[in-house]
Amino acid sequence: MGLNGKNILGFGLSAKGDKAFYAKHPATGDSLEIPFFEATQDEVDVAIQLAEKAFESYRNKSGLEKGSFLETIAEELSKVESELVARCTQETGLPEGRLKGELGRTTGQLRLFASLLREGSWVDARIDRANPERIPVPKPDTRQMQIALGPVGVFGASNFPLAFSVAGGDTASALAAGCPVVVKAHPAHPGTSELVGTAILEAARKSKMPEGVFSLVQGASIAVGQAIVKHPLIKAIGFTGSFRGGKALFDEAARRDEPIPVYAEMGSTNPVFMLPGSLEENHGNLANGLSGSVQLGVGQFCTNPGITIVPKTAKGDQFQEELEQNISTSESATMLTEAIQHNYVSGLNQLKSKSQVTSISKGKQLEGGSQGTAEILEVSATDFLSDKALEEEVFGPSTLLVRSNNKEEMLQIARNLNGHLTATVHGTSKDLLEYADLLKLLERKVGRLLINSFPTGVEVCHSMVHGGPFPATSDARMTSVGTAAITRFTRPICYQNFPDELLPDELKESNPLHILRLEDGTYILPKA
Amino acid sequence: MGLNGKNILGFGLSAKGDKAFYAKHPATGDSLEIPFFEATQDEVDVAIQLAEKAFESYRNKSGLEKGSFLETIAEELSKVESELVARCTQETGLPEGRLKGELGRTTGQLRLFASLLREGSWVDARIDRANPERIPVPKPDTRQMQIALGPVGVFGASNFPLAFSVAGGDTASALAAGCPVVVKAHPAHPGTSELVGTAILEAARKSKMPEGVFSLVQGASIAVGQAIVKHPLIKAIGFTGSFRGGKALFDEAARRDEPIPVYAEMGSTNPVFMLPGSLEENHGNLANGLSGSVQLGVGQFCTNPGITIVPKTAKGDQFQEELEQNISTSESATMLTEAIQHNYVSGLNQLKSKSQVTSISKGKQLEGGSQGTAEILEVSATDFLSDKALEEEVFGPSTLLVRSNNKEEMLQIARNLNGHLTATVHGTSKDLLEYADLLKLLERKVGRLLINSFPTGVEVCHSMVHGGPFPATSDARMTSVGTAAITRFTRPICYQNFPDELLPDELKESNPLHILRLEDGTYILPKA
Repeated sequence: MGLNGKNILGFGLSAKGDKAFYAKHPATGDSLEIPFFEATQDEVDVAIQLAEKAFESYRNKSGLEKGSFLETIAEELSKVESELVARCTQETGLPEGRLKGELGRTTGQLRLFASLLREGSWVDARIDRANPERIPVPKPDTRQMQIALGPVGVFGASNFPLAFSVAGGDTASALAAGCPVVVKAHPAHPGTSELVGTAILEAARKSKMPEGVFSLVQGASIAVGQAIVKHPLIKAIGFTGSFRGGKALFDEAARRDEPIPVYAEMGSTNPVFMLPGSLEENHGNLANGLSGSVQLGVGQFCTNPGITIVPKTAKGDQFQEELEQNISTSESATMLTEAIQHNYVSGLNQLKSKSQVTSISKGKQLEGGSQGTAEILEVSATDFLSDKALEEEVFGPSTLLVRSNNKEEMLQIARNLNGHLTATVHGTSKDLLEYADLLKLLERKVGRLLINSFPTGVEVCHSMVHGGPFPATSDARMTSVGTAAITRFTRPICYQNFPDELLPDELKESNPLHILRLEDGTYILPKA
Repeated sequence: MGLNGKNILGFGLSAKGDKAFYAKHPATGDSLEIPFFEATQDEVDVAIQLAEKAFESYRNKSGLEKGSFLETIAEELSKVESELVARCTQETGLPEGRLKGELGRTTGQLRLFASLLREGSWVDARIDRANPERIPVPKPDTRQMQIALGPVGVFGASNFPLAFSVAGGDTASALAAGCPVVVKAHPAHPGTSELVGTAILEAARKSKMPEGVFSLVQGASIAVGQAIVKHPLIKAIGFTGSFRGGKALFDEAARRDEPIPVYAEMGSTNPVFMLPGSLEENHGNLANGLSGSVQLGVGQFCTNPGITIVPKTAKGDQFQEELEQNISTSESATMLTEAIQHNYVSGLNQLKSKSQVTSISKGKQLEGGSQGTAEILEVSATDFLSDKALEEEVFGPSTLLVRSNNKEEMLQIARNLNGHLTATVHGTSKDLLEYADLLKLLERKVGRLLINSFPTGVEVCHSMVHGGPFPATSDARMTSVGTAAITRFTRPICYQNFPDELLPDELKESNPLHILRLEDGTYILPKA
């Protein structure tokens, strides 16, 4: 299967535009083969019109049908694994092992949503039966469940070319919800996107899904994405990327005649608090663990620990020395794009230009383009607290050690934090009791709170929250990873006084789907 | 208990401003006794700072504690029923019977949320246990539940001075979620608001809730409300009112440095479709039923049926005649405020100024101020389809009959609809089969879809959806009535690798609260 560089509009291919762009190998800066044609405004419109047309049929597919579609996508992706990983390695510089793992995560995610649909209870069915005898007014029969919002626009992310891109979590959850998806491919990996899009197209055909259930548009300029967000038929947006990009989409969506929800995961510095007892017992392992977490994926994870708060104690100093040593012997690796590498360096330089910030350790920079070299900076808690800019994300393998003199400084740092995806506390049982107020403060700031682990590595499961208060995301009420992500693309509807045969199966009196329901105020869990 | 005209800031009263206003009797236009002092910007800030201070303690109250607080509010309200109803009658012109019923609805709503909290499963607890043996990476222990967002601003509504105001659904659901509430009283019923606010204050004291869990600010100018929406410590807004008012709040909230969710229920025309078979069998009852629904509460219900689509058949004509007769013998009644009555008349005049719209029946106008007189207008489906303005809400006891020539015209009307709170279809079994596509079209447009009933009367229960696509509300993903309203004020959090003793009770291994949980992908419903 070769690449064609075209946009996938429903079941067809299209390349009507006159703008083309190339993927680049980040290590060499060389353009990779074949041009990709940027979608025109007309092509975007065609994709969205097809999605709207598909919606009426797709949203009424059963959970089994949608689940089987998602599984077929997973199968089609597995079939092209070698081609996909080969192209993706070229486009992203990410090693083969990592990409194979990411593909497994992507197909696993699709299968998890398929199982959610097969089980069926996610629709939150609620039934309150009629009581015609009630005084003073009869009680009507009302039944509620979640239904799909409409066509969804998804923006591929640069840092997870598979798991957060064309067939990633946003697409999987929107398709699971019953929403057709129009994906804007990330311009850093258009070939990967095309291969994944083609697999989805193949799965849609095989599963007899309506044309328009999925489309993929390419583009290197912001016009393509804007056309999606502004289109009146698009009802929600999923995005993972920078604060600037996500906030721009959010603002654009709020300005529409009909505002729509934007789920933008916009970045986070993921503070890690090292408590004194834990350092006392475990400084060496903590230094190793943090070093690994900082460098995972060349620091290009949304949950990369960008701030580490360390007490100014003897063991804190020892931890810092061990971390310095660890980092100083590390070797640089290729970042995803030249632009990301450039931003990483300039972000670090901006921090280092501040007199209160010191660079205390740096890894070895290898030959080649787009090299991301790990670096550790240090600042005092007092200085950190007086400069809000120090909390901003520097996307790459670095962390800022904030050295605090006492518990109150730690609490003050926690109190002043913006919203983040995660916060982590390393502590002994005694530490954790003593710092219970720290945990309570952090709970208000993040979507996920970790104890004695590291934030990188986001488990795809029912209980995951990959989200958090602004500016980490544009909507703290939702998660973009895990099965709860499905409700980003649904809304409740209430059927009042419906004859049983006109109700969806989820709400029929006999509960033919055997799902969990809240019936007259009591949860009823039928036996399978 | 006399009125004092002051703002309730936490446990104290305050009247520092120099602006005062009076409530007016809508029938006479006379000012009612005692001036109400508009809150200053400083007073609003004090209320919100107290709310923030209360939040840390209040959000950690158990479901039992919060439930008991809500029940105590209900008790305190019942204690002042006669005084409350007397004052409210003066301020709103609504009859005593209606207000007693509305108070029952208000206290019932508080008690329903209390029972939800006692049961406890609403937090959507999800547990995925660790698997340290998993290859290639160990699986961490992750546990998710809903937690409170933060201080909430609530705007009292004019049309439900009790059930959608100071202790109404927004306040009840926010307090249930664990969020302190700052209410902006509606200036049309400040005395009612003060009495209700005082009852909540009393309940907060008796239940030993932290100061700031509730505050009430008065104001006739928009500055007070703006100060609430713009305040950085406010994390969500609840509002019921006009499109203009709700959209202004939404825009203001989206422009904040940290955008926050606004749940604005902004109005709706609630189309009713009369199908041919149903008219054939039942035209007389349908005319009576519609007439009653149109006039309920002098047409001042969010779910008032403002558009009625009627086939151009002999029985459709007969239905229209019966409705005309019914309305022509009706008598006017006092509307809530002079401004609402004025807007009603000018809204009708605007419709009637269009040559394609005819007034076909009008009730008798009684003596007295602010009289709302029922009126029926008529337009052809073709003309309706060519003028989007005809779909806009005219708040009051009127409906626009849209006479359609065939099924396709009905479908086209459904297709073209904006978002509404409700849509209703009257049909025989045969009708409903034949018009299945109409139901499917309407499902996309509304939060609640009714068959063979009338949209006025919103049941407070688990399965109610009082919401719907824009412009009916600013957030179709939520309901403002029923227990599902609680999640408007919460967000999910994930605890990773937490020692059991540090987890909230909802997520502890032993499930001490005996709530429904999703454990390792399986719903577990413990026996009580």
